[in-house]
Amino acid sequence: MQTIFKGKHFITLQDWSKDEIDTLLEVSFDLKKKFAMGIPTPYLQYKTIFLMFFEQSTRTRNSMETGITQLGGHGNFLDVSTMQIAHGEVAKDTAIILSRYGDGIACRNCFWGKGNKYLREMAEWSTVPIINLQCDLYHPMQVIADLMTMKEKIGELKGTKVSVIWAYATSHKKPISVPLSQILLFPRYGMKLTLAYPEGYDLPDWAIQQAKENAEKYGGTLTITHNMEEAYRDADIVIPKNWGSWVANQKNEVIDPLLTSYQDWKCTEKMIALASKDVLYMHALPADREKEVENSVIDGPHSIVYDEAENRLHTAKAVMTITMGGK
Amino acid sequence: MQTIFKGKHFITLQDWSKDEIDTLLEVSFDLKKKFAMGIPTPYLQYKTIFLMFFEQSTRTRNSMETGITQLGGHGNFLDVSTMQIAHGEVAKDTAIILSRYGDGIACRNCFWGKGNKYLREMAEWSTVPIINLQCDLYHPMQVIADLMTMKEKIGELKGTKVSVIWAYATSHKKPISVPLSQILLFPRYGMKLTLAYPEGYDLPDWAIQQAKENAEKYGGTLTITHNMEEAYRDADIVIPKNWGSWVANQKNEVIDPLLTSYQDWKCTEKMIALASKDVLYMHALPADREKEVENSVIDGPHSIVYDEAENRLHTAKAVMTITMGGK
Amino acid sequence: MQTIFKGKHFITLQDWSKDEIDTLLEVSFDLKKKFAMGIPTPYLQYKTIFLMFFEQSTRTRNSMETGITQLGGHGNFLDVSTMQIAHGEVAKDTAIILSRYGDGIACRNCFWGKGNKYLREMAEWSTVPIINLQCDLYHPMQVIADLMTMKEKIGELKGTKVSVIWAYATSHKKPISVPLSQILLFPRYGMKLTLAYPEGYDLPDWAIQQAKENAEKYGGTLTITHNMEEAYRDADIVIPKNWGSWVANQKNEVIDPLLTSYQDWKCTEKMIALASKDVLYMHALPADREKEVENSVIDGPHSIVYDEAENRLHTAKAVMTITMGGK
Repeated sequence: MQTIFKGKHFITLQDWSKDEIDTLLEVSFDLKKKFAMGIPTPYLQYKTIFLMFFEQSTRTRNSMETGITQLGGHGNFLDVSTMQIAHGEVAKDTAIILSRYGDGIACRNCFWGKGNKYLREMAEWSTVPIINLQCDLYHPMQVIADLMTMKEKIGELKGTKVSVIWAYATSHKKPISVPLSQILLFPRYGMKLTLAYPEGYDLPDWAIQQAKENAEKYGGTLTITHNMEEAYRDADIVIPKNWGSWVANQKNEVIDPLLTSYQDWKCTEKMIALASKDVLYMHALPADREKEVENSVIDGPHSIVYDEAENRLHTAKAVMTITMGGK
Repeated sequence: MQTIFKGKHFITLQDWSKDEIDTLLEVSFDLKKKFAMGIPTPYLQYKTIFLMFFEQSTRTRNSMETGITQLGGHGNFLDVSTMQIAHGEVAKDTAIILSRYGDGIACRNCFWGKGNKYLREMAEWSTVPIINLQCDLYHPMQVIADLMTMKEKIGELKGTKVSVIWAYATSHKKPISVPLSQILLFPRYGMKLTLAYPEGYDLPDWAIQQAKENAEKYGGTLTITHNMEEAYRDADIVIPKNWGSWVANQKNEVIDPLLTSYQDWKCTEKMIALASKDVLYMHALPADREKEVENSVIDGPHSIVYDEAENRLHTAKAVMTITMGGK
Repeated sequence: MQTIFKGKHFITLQDWSKDEIDTLLEVSFDLKKKFAMGIPTPYLQYKTIFLMFFEQSTRTRNSMETGITQLGGHGNFLDVSTMQIAHGEVAKDTAIILSRYGDGIACRNCFWGKGNKYLREMAEWSTVPIINLQCDLYHPMQVIADLMTMKEKIGELKGTKVSVIWAYATSHKKPISVPLSQILLFPRYGMKLTLAYPEGYDLPDWAIQQAKENAEKYGGTLTITHNMEEAYRDADIVIPKNWGSWVANQKNEVIDPLLTSYQDWKCTEKMIALASKDVLYMHALPADREKEVENSVIDGPHSIVYDEAENRLHTAKAVMTITMGGK
């Protein structure tokens, strides 16, 4: 168990050792149990975390704001349009000043080619932890909650067959940060990961390379396929979710010709039937219902999406507790 | 006195028994007294209520957010434009997830034909109380504050002559939820209620029917008239307020030909002179000054609008305390 | 030391005696020391301050919201577009109602000819302190933080040569409230103040008159020049900052012909070299980098802008503590 986290940034789990992630999970489970028992956990009394949002959010914002309340502190919700960023305020100034005032700076900035840079620039200057609430590359808050949920449902994850599968959607242009973070993290827990997507939806080469290195180091595997059925077959966990093609379409249009040709990439009952008998269906939400997934699947017996969403709260509280409180 | 309210929804007072409403008033008076004495009331420490707003608000939002602060908890103010609802998030998902995180979900959604349905759909799935901050049909927070104010000023309300009177305004298209909730609630306290409006501003038939049933059951009366003077004559309490014509104008325009023909429906000194000597003037605010009402009336000796507005705080705290706290 | 502040408005320091300002500074230093030591300061437990913003903000909003959290209370952040002000709500109603609910009303309203009037109208009706977060005329929160920073760096300020200097910027139309408040306050501490600006950027005559009276009364001086170099020469503190010309351009355009002719009014290394060896560079932030000031100056050894920004927190907490708490 690691004990020294104070001031550590939470930008990508690639920067966290496996021991540190294990500790994070232990703290998450402890906070969840206390939550269930109604035991107060005011570990961050009178502390402030800034919640800067460049984009919309439901789960992320509310898990953070409710979480810090349950920890006795306060979340300053900052829709960046209400800040002076439009008046020429640079990341450096924002980071220095907010870290003088409060105790943590969390930020969602998914702008392609900009989000992660913005967080890294803040991290360079901040004296308090920078917490990534999703950027163009990573969504560590989502995948740590995914991992916690898998541990709850399955226990030891070594050898678990998990498939991250591209799915059709038209609701909005989704970043690649969720699948990218999943292929990096899950192999570190010895899982056999299949990444499936139609041509044109590749993830960056450097991410595939890092995912393979993680798999080798921790005894997992990474298989890439363009055959959707192969990804469903015998899977223990399936995570079908849309992401935008940053290869084919840099124009940030939601719907393009490439997308419309892959409408059959949908999680159907028929696909679920190919998987293991007790296969778990996961989704970060919001799902594009009847496009990404049939209602009967997301609302059916294999779906654990609400447990997954709830764990966003417990893991968010754990991240704040160990980085902003503690020793 | 009722003691078991935890998890009970507060969508319309029609769903609350008279005993339950009496308890709510008792708790409101108790909290008001403690407020006056400066006695802390941290009954909801570390708890979160979500405050979802589809429309603008001053009194409702601030009474809730200040109220939960005084109760030791936190209100997550959610301008819905910052949520993922635009990204296809359905009421079911929002309700399940927020109720896993926090302790109550309050919502204002006045869209005609949609608001109440949205609340009811959330109530179907939420495990925490759904609190209506005004929908297309009901505004229980306003009318419970009205009732508290009447009790403070008058005491026993049986036989009190109260007139809910349509008034001219151009400031914005107002929902029918306030008058509709008033005609349902006040007769349950034995009041003699007159509902006055020019032709074309009818409230729905089913609401009139339910109001009459309430009047019969509890010894009140309901009289409908299109004669404004009749409504003012000998009244103990007058509540002149604009509402939109959902009969004549479904286009959601603020000003239409029907409206402009009724500019004389205004609460003037002359009208007040027709009423009882000590008549009380009430308004939910904001008033469209010099259109709905003369300044000399709303700022004059009969007006109790600020006491009425203040009681929004005490009743809001009472609703939260008994539905989110307690047994 | 003054002890009775409860309910006192904080609209301009012109309304505060020198004794009162001295007490405010003492409280600021005390709160800063406790902050450094991690000693909790829950002096405003369960109390609410309303934070009404008609304009964007980073430092002001976050220093207030983080500050009230550290004091144990809660800041209701109110983007006024979410309030009923668009529905005809007048300042009187807002002030009466919010002061019935909570414990302080803070407001930023910089609209020329309107902001200060709005605050004064609220002050007439409010039963709780009205706190100015910047209006068209004053920014007392900024200048009290400036004063605290000067005291920290220099100690006794009598005779200190401080220059408030107009600077070129294009980022947005800036109010005159910062320089206007500075020329009023600094001479009260015996400083020798130089105000420098190009023709057309005059501050109002009444403000110059009051500043001169303050200088005479407290042993300071006020010198006005249109020669930038004169203002830098031998200065102990320089505060070069843009403000809009309300004389030449009432159209609220950011860039106008008058402005573009003064691009050389920039704080450069060359200018700094004219000043005292240990000259301090201050700026309220955000600075229009490379227009108002060279990066090497604002990021260099003379710059104390981040200490100045941090003191916004401590002084904001002091203002809230003595006006909303205490006796």
